[in-house]
Amino acid sequence: MRRRERRRCTAALLLLLGLAPSQRSLAEDVRTTRERVRAYRLAHEKAILGELVEFLSIPNVASDREAIRRNAELLRVMLERRGVRAEILDVGDAPPAVYGELLVPHARHTIVFYAHFDGQPVDPSQWASDPWKPVLRDRPLEHGGRDVPWSAIPTPIPGEWRLYARSASDDKSPIVALLVALDALRAAQIPLSVNVKFFFEGEEEAGSPHLRTILQKYADRLKADAWVLCDGPIHQTRRQQVYFGARGIVDLELTVYGPRRPLHSGHYGNWAPNPAAMLAHLLASMREEDGRIRIAGFYEDVRPLTESERRALAEIPDIEASLREELGLSWSEGQGRRLVELLMVPALNVRGLRAGHVGETAQNAIPTEATASIDFRLVPDQTPESVRRRVEEHIRRQGFTIVSEAPTLEQRRRYPKIVRLIWGSGYPPARTSMDLPISRALVRLIEEAVGAPIVKMPTLGGSIPMYLFQELLNVPVIGVPIVNHDNNQHGANENLRVQNLWDGIELYAVLFAHLGHTREGG
Amino acid sequence: MRRRERRRCTAALLLLLGLAPSQRSLAEDVRTTRERVRAYRLAHEKAILGELVEFLSIPNVASDREAIRRNAELLRVMLERRGVRAEILDVGDAPPAVYGELLVPHARHTIVFYAHFDGQPVDPSQWASDPWKPVLRDRPLEHGGRDVPWSAIPTPIPGEWRLYARSASDDKSPIVALLVALDALRAAQIPLSVNVKFFFEGEEEAGSPHLRTILQKYADRLKADAWVLCDGPIHQTRRQQVYFGARGIVDLELTVYGPRRPLHSGHYGNWAPNPAAMLAHLLASMREEDGRIRIAGFYEDVRPLTESERRALAEIPDIEASLREELGLSWSEGQGRRLVELLMVPALNVRGLRAGHVGETAQNAIPTEATASIDFRLVPDQTPESVRRRVEEHIRRQGFTIVSEAPTLEQRRRYPKIVRLIWGSGYPPARTSMDLPISRALVRLIEEAVGAPIVKMPTLGGSIPMYLFQELLNVPVIGVPIVNHDNNQHGANENLRVQNLWDGIELYAVLFAHLGHTREGG
Repeated sequence: MRRRERRRCTAALLLLLGLAPSQRSLAEDVRTTRERVRAYRLAHEKAILGELVEFLSIPNVASDREAIRRNAELLRVMLERRGVRAEILDVGDAPPAVYGELLVPHARHTIVFYAHFDGQPVDPSQWASDPWKPVLRDRPLEHGGRDVPWSAIPTPIPGEWRLYARSASDDKSPIVALLVALDALRAAQIPLSVNVKFFFEGEEEAGSPHLRTILQKYADRLKADAWVLCDGPIHQTRRQQVYFGARGIVDLELTVYGPRRPLHSGHYGNWAPNPAAMLAHLLASMREEDGRIRIAGFYEDVRPLTESERRALAEIPDIEASLREELGLSWSEGQGRRLVELLMVPALNVRGLRAGHVGETAQNAIPTEATASIDFRLVPDQTPESVRRRVEEHIRRQGFTIVSEAPTLEQRRRYPKIVRLIWGSGYPPARTSMDLPISRALVRLIEEAVGAPIVKMPTLGGSIPMYLFQELLNVPVIGVPIVNHDNNQHGANENLRVQNLWDGIELYAVLFAHLGHTREGG
Repeated sequence: MRRRERRRCTAALLLLLGLAPSQRSLAEDVRTTRERVRAYRLAHEKAILGELVEFLSIPNVASDREAIRRNAELLRVMLERRGVRAEILDVGDAPPAVYGELLVPHARHTIVFYAHFDGQPVDPSQWASDPWKPVLRDRPLEHGGRDVPWSAIPTPIPGEWRLYARSASDDKSPIVALLVALDALRAAQIPLSVNVKFFFEGEEEAGSPHLRTILQKYADRLKADAWVLCDGPIHQTRRQQVYFGARGIVDLELTVYGPRRPLHSGHYGNWAPNPAAMLAHLLASMREEDGRIRIAGFYEDVRPLTESERRALAEIPDIEASLREELGLSWSEGQGRRLVELLMVPALNVRGLRAGHVGETAQNAIPTEATASIDFRLVPDQTPESVRRRVEEHIRRQGFTIVSEAPTLEQRRRYPKIVRLIWGSGYPPARTSMDLPISRALVRLIEEAVGAPIVKMPTLGGSIPMYLFQELLNVPVIGVPIVNHDNNQHGANENLRVQNLWDGIELYAVLFAHLGHTREGG
């Protein structure tokens, strides 16, 4: 595996030779670029935010095909507006991806920047405002943030203000940051140092079911020396973060069955099997309260960390205390292990429970079924298939018969404990070696850009389909996110901290302007 | 306890002296009464059903005060139509009860007939038709029952047809059966043998929070030698059933807390405590899959059965096999014990679960809270207070801090595991001795009326506030239900099997006409 990675990355290695000798002049160039980009941003803040708001106003759940296409069409226009050759990449009637290409004369290397423009489904009843009508607030909602009408926005816009909308962070603002970085460089007449390609996905939050097909179909356009992923948040300390991997994911919905009609809990209670109680036992058998997964062999496929990875983890500042304070927690799972250590192991999250009724509509009845929705986070070398096999073995050992459709009356009469399993497609984890030349060079350039130590995460806690780029395109894949960690990503009231957009524009501009210069500068 | 019951029941004993010598003539009288009542019913089926349909068309959830009062007003009119002196019994703005009184010259004894006219809350999305627009179907829905328009109803109406509506069984049809029994006796010129009083409650399904106050305030009107409860179903074999007790009930809603905002399950998964997983462990700690309650000391207050009660249980026919077939079950809780035995012990029913999202709206987020709704069924000598004490002790032993309101941020930061408990009011169980003379006499008269052995249940599985009549009014309380067991009581698509209404009219008429004659007949 590591030998193969080495071979793949010869090009990247060459790209970065000579970085050290030119360190001094590179630092000056980077500082100049940042200053000019900042001046551009300060002069255009309302227009930048306006473009983001327009983009956020289009609903973007992947299952809403018509809306997703409208997102893709707008994105193509946004790219073409910058002189980027843009194209909508279709496969059948799947949510399309959007491709962009900006080639530079004499550039030797090509970098693909990835983000997704679809968002998680929403439950509008949980939101303070319409998820697709962006609202600017003068602080986070939980600190009493008040709506600021668009007509009343000051300039400069305070960096601590928040923009609320689905995908405000995940991932529409990184997309806008990339495009504004191009605008700022052009305005400052700073040339790009590498060929820049964009690949914007339209169904990442739905599990990227067609990404493989798209990457295969359009492999010629997507040739590159490395991929930079702009998805995910920066570190909770607000330090810039670079990640070299991502956990894989697979989701599972379990439904357990009781009597085929609701029964009076008095006349049948303690005789007719209660599916909600059965589900509680099944879930408790799968996972401890402290997060440990009790499924036999679940940790067997976990690859040990390398020395560099362990060192990187040790350098990451502690955030547990402030995070607990912020989240209203007096404890955390994992028997005292640090958050970053826990993200290096698999996770089982119960994301939903549903059975019978609670609250005002509760009825004294034995429910007919009980459902739990779970997502698993995977680390190398687990795969959705290996997880599925172990989970199903475990469930069978609890005495359950597994079915894939709602059981027939015949099946109900025959099998004592029936569970219906619906597996999501999911994808495996991925990890790029932190010891590759491209990995080291990117870290140093970003540290130069932000002027401070950065957080190097061997594996991001979240999931993005990094494995596919590695597997199909055979290139190193490294994540350079920009958005705030406290963005309510995936939940209600998702938001962007405005300063993160401003910083992100500068960071991406530095990558565009200097990643290819490092060699020439020697 | 048994000595006290004996003393209370001297009057009832006197009432029934001489039953044996008059056995032969009583049997003839009962047969004659049944035949004449049946003839009346056959001649008036559409009118009888019409009155029930009018009654069922008024929504009757106790929290809907205005609708409950309309039910009470109609019920008063229905009573007065029969020459019953009727009265609405108010306490403050609680759902009222309806009282009726029909005194007979020279009757020595007085029996109160009890039923309730309120119904369980409904979830209309689960119903095949509007819960308060009664629909007659030519067989049960699950056997393909088709709606029969009112204009197309044949006479006689087939006994296997079903009438669908909230409270079609629980309890509006027993109320109509009682009133039609009066009509039929009057038409046949058969006099009542006892003073008949009616007490119809308006908030039984809400836990009878004001019943005690009503019984105390109107104690003078409610003086009687015994109470007959018309609530509940007959036996699953369709045999007539008499019950001498009822389980008590208390409900509990538990909410367990995680982070105070939803968190991305990737970035925080296996670190931030998952409330759905905590809830699963808590529920699993409270109850085995097979129904056994794991709460320490929970069974300590359970009074052993008497010899008569054990014998009665042994005589009850087995229904488990056909019930499993009907309900699509291949097993039952209780380690192989019979249904009737399990109804003699306490039950813990998980009636609902709610956390995060499942299905189409599932999100990869750690939920902020998870809720379970539970009802406990109690047997002598448990009380809601003793159950509450033991449950809370158990929950504390699992490491939880108990709160009664949503926890403050300060509490969340301080206590590792927080559970909010909301206890319903509930009430204790009750049991009348099967060895009392009134108990024996009623059994024999009903066996005469139905011409077959009946099922004698020491305690009904369901809950009705029998304890209050015993405690406040100091009289024996015995249940004589009439509705079908497969009535979806408390759930969606509640229904009445028409034949049960016909049989119930005859049965109640026999009680009115002969319960007081047994002595004179000697």
